[in-house]
Amino acid sequence: MTAIAETTDTAPVVCHRDNEIAVITLNRPQRLNAFTAEMGSAIRAALDDTDADDSVRAVVITGSGRAFCAGADLSGGSSTFELRTGAPGEVPRDGGGMVSLRIFESLKPVVVAVNGPSAGVGVTMTLPADLRIASDDARFGFVFVRRGIVPEACSSWFLPRLVGLPTALRWTMGGQMVSAAEAFEHGLVQKVVPKDQVLAEAIAAARELTDGTAPVSVALTRQLMWRMGGADSPYAAHAADSKGIFYRGTMDDAAEGVTSFLEKRDPEFTDSVSTDLPRIF
Amino acid sequence: MTAIAETTDTAPVVCHRDNEIAVITLNRPQRLNAFTAEMGSAIRAALDDTDADDSVRAVVITGSGRAFCAGADLSGGSSTFELRTGAPGEVPRDGGGMVSLRIFESLKPVVVAVNGPSAGVGVTMTLPADLRIASDDARFGFVFVRRGIVPEACSSWFLPRLVGLPTALRWTMGGQMVSAAEAFEHGLVQKVVPKDQVLAEAIAAARELTDGTAPVSVALTRQLMWRMGGADSPYAAHAADSKGIFYRGTMDDAAEGVTSFLEKRDPEFTDSVSTDLPRIF
Amino acid sequence: MTAIAETTDTAPVVCHRDNEIAVITLNRPQRLNAFTAEMGSAIRAALDDTDADDSVRAVVITGSGRAFCAGADLSGGSSTFELRTGAPGEVPRDGGGMVSLRIFESLKPVVVAVNGPSAGVGVTMTLPADLRIASDDARFGFVFVRRGIVPEACSSWFLPRLVGLPTALRWTMGGQMVSAAEAFEHGLVQKVVPKDQVLAEAIAAARELTDGTAPVSVALTRQLMWRMGGADSPYAAHAADSKGIFYRGTMDDAAEGVTSFLEKRDPEFTDSVSTDLPRIF
Repeated sequence: MTAIAETTDTAPVVCHRDNEIAVITLNRPQRLNAFTAEMGSAIRAALDDTDADDSVRAVVITGSGRAFCAGADLSGGSSTFELRTGAPGEVPRDGGGMVSLRIFESLKPVVVAVNGPSAGVGVTMTLPADLRIASDDARFGFVFVRRGIVPEACSSWFLPRLVGLPTALRWTMGGQMVSAAEAFEHGLVQKVVPKDQVLAEAIAAARELTDGTAPVSVALTRQLMWRMGGADSPYAAHAADSKGIFYRGTMDDAAEGVTSFLEKRDPEFTDSVSTDLPRIF
Repeated sequence: MTAIAETTDTAPVVCHRDNEIAVITLNRPQRLNAFTAEMGSAIRAALDDTDADDSVRAVVITGSGRAFCAGADLSGGSSTFELRTGAPGEVPRDGGGMVSLRIFESLKPVVVAVNGPSAGVGVTMTLPADLRIASDDARFGFVFVRRGIVPEACSSWFLPRLVGLPTALRWTMGGQMVSAAEAFEHGLVQKVVPKDQVLAEAIAAARELTDGTAPVSVALTRQLMWRMGGADSPYAAHAADSKGIFYRGTMDDAAEGVTSFLEKRDPEFTDSVSTDLPRIF
Repeated sequence: MTAIAETTDTAPVVCHRDNEIAVITLNRPQRLNAFTAEMGSAIRAALDDTDADDSVRAVVITGSGRAFCAGADLSGGSSTFELRTGAPGEVPRDGGGMVSLRIFESLKPVVVAVNGPSAGVGVTMTLPADLRIASDDARFGFVFVRRGIVPEACSSWFLPRLVGLPTALRWTMGGQMVSAAEAFEHGLVQKVVPKDQVLAEAIAAARELTDGTAPVSVALTRQLMWRMGGADSPYAAHAADSKGIFYRGTMDDAAEGVTSFLEKRDPEFTDSVSTDLPRIF
């Protein structure tokens, strides 16, 4: 992860490693980690690195300081959401959505350690992560209707799939803050822990996805589960997982998976995400 | 709401206002509000009015008397479901579905006050509402398999998205009555209250979606959440909410939303649903 | 059900009848009912029979002995998942998926009595059933990532629709065994009972879908609920259930359904699944 090693403490995002887990930390604590275009680019670049680095098995995203992310940086004042466009009639891409889609496309599992309050894009960009572990003082605000804009970062696709449509409607049409307990009750977060344990718990949760599992199989499983969520019918899944079983069945990991099981020992998987990932879609 | 003011007590539906909330009441109490084609047309016309009237922020639908709606009016006896068709081979549109789709397309949030038992189309037509508040004596019957017909009003699309597929299958394939408590447990209704409070609670719930929120943002949020529920992938949501952020970002509400937040005061949104709603799909 | 009567105790699957319920039993107890291509074919053939036989109202699938199904038979050792292909570039169809899709297409409700541990294809092939009743010693293992392969049998389409995406991701990316209690909590199984009652409870649950219900209506309801789960929009459901109401409305069952209701007696439905099922898709 060369690129990540070059980041400095003034970068909008800093990265470090906890063995096979890469930790990406939003790093504007003096601004409650308010989201900027630069922060969005830095998160996406960090995920390019973690995808390319076979020594990374999973990614944890967290925030520095007392908040996770206060949402869009409003220091531009009333013109904050007046986006520039390259040409007349051209609609610029939503910056939060570019981060969401990058997490959606990640080849490694992504766990978010929500270390404190989170609002606007600060919460919507975390929805394509596989797990969210929250600090007990975390709060979640889908506040878009209170700022005169709309929910973004593909949240209309992700949120109903995580918490169900009735809850998604209530949270996004009302825009009130949601407590960690309510977020847990409805499935937005999978665990609520004391603030000083949230990062360690997220790393432990990531490790449950990496211990004893084949990296290429995890990457394909992640693609299958997320992508088939929107498929017309199970026939699309049948086409994809027929390819998955067929291609993976001839690779070294499948032989090792069966052999290690029959020999009652831990498997040692060797297929590589960066070079051996079959295309099944 | 001129058209609504013209309704009389013998109309199948009557409408009144509670400040910014429009209340549509099914008005055949002597028939347990059994559904007729005329009632369906009247509900749709009332929603045309509430969409066009910027002074209406949300809609509540309830029933007059002890039931919410007993389902299709069976006074036609054994030929009740023998529908006329205009031409050979032509399939007439399901009347319950025409109401469901009108609620789906509503520009204002819709809350249902289920003031008592509800069966057949009486329950399926409420599924596209954003919230359902039930009286503690409410019961819900997806009784179609017991009448020799099929679940209608687009319930096969809506119900699994509200209560999950296992519950939807059990309720619709068995056709037994579901209590208010079971409906709450599985997410069909969001709150169960004493019978004499159901309308007031529904109005209060509607108000939580209107206080401090921008009407145009609420209309777009409603479209995004419902419509992306069936989208193939988050890329469709990215296209829609990029437009949403871009168009809304240049409108007065976005400037007011940010300014009022920075000034720590309540926002005063002025963009109008009837004239300023951008097209994002 | 002639074909079923011909099965013997050495067949991979045996079938018997409990009045209107057909029971299909996985019959390799000495191998914990490990799945083979022959077992898959036998399950599919049994469902062809139950679909064709109007005296069968519902199907229960269970396992013989202490396990439900240990997953793919690994007696082929390290080459277990090296599938043969008919021609270069041809991808063979996943065998578990062929069973899943056959259950998906069943015209009768399917209930699974999970009489003990279930892993791999042993659990994924049960996902398109309408209900799963589990023995209290049942455990569920989405172990694919631990064998170096991928979740199959269309599980990426079915599982998130049953338990929600966060739970589906956690179970399939980690591959740990899931207890009956956890499976119940997240909706994978609808009831947990003592081991010696699991078959009787499954038969009772199937009977709740058949008592007083019209067979053709149940078949169409099953198709509507499952198929609209992946539809783009409620307009697709409107087209299908307009046909359903129109065609069913002219059939004998609809007249009997209304008449019996008005006469406060049990209905006697006579339309036949094998000959009278309208096409609504």
